[in-house]
Amino acid sequence: MDHVFTIGTIAACLTTAAFVPQVIKAHTSKETKDISLAMCVLLASGVMLWAIYGFFLHSLPIIGANTTTLALALYLIYLKKKYG
Amino acid sequence: MDHVFTIGTIAACLTTAAFVPQVIKAHTSKETKDISLAMCVLLASGVMLWAIYGFFLHSLPIIGANTTTLALALYLIYLKKKYG
Repeated sequence: MDHVFTIGTIAACLTTAAFVPQVIKAHTSKETKDISLAMCVLLASGVMLWAIYGFFLHSLPIIGANTTTLALALYLIYLKKKYG
Repeated sequence: MDHVFTIGTIAACLTTAAFVPQVIKAHTSKETKDISLAMCVLLASGVMLWAIYGFFLHSLPIIGANTTTLALALYLIYLKKKYG
């Protein structure tokens, strides 16, 4: 079961970390035209529900990973609103 | 526990569905300049591991949601490579 836990942990790190380069790119280039606002909003809503799900399950990794992604998605929405 | 299951299911649907409008936008506009390739690659790697995790856990929802996102992320990488 240890290997399965490791795979899940790496998976969680990768899918959370995925939005860091996107936020950095949007922040530095000030260009967000090609990014879908719907993607950002659906993603933010989804990870917020994942965090609530983790709260009910008392799962700190689920809460942690998803509140991090939520913060990144909300900042991406802010940048998208700012730069269009 | 039923409400928690419902929250998790809606969360899974939202985070999977999030990439549909992004793929549609990139496909129709043929513009992917502002999309981070690193995001696509990290996302694809992450959801592939999530699918493997789901396979070990015999969880069809985890496998289904993540292979769907994997297909969307791979197509986004293809579009990004094509349009730059």
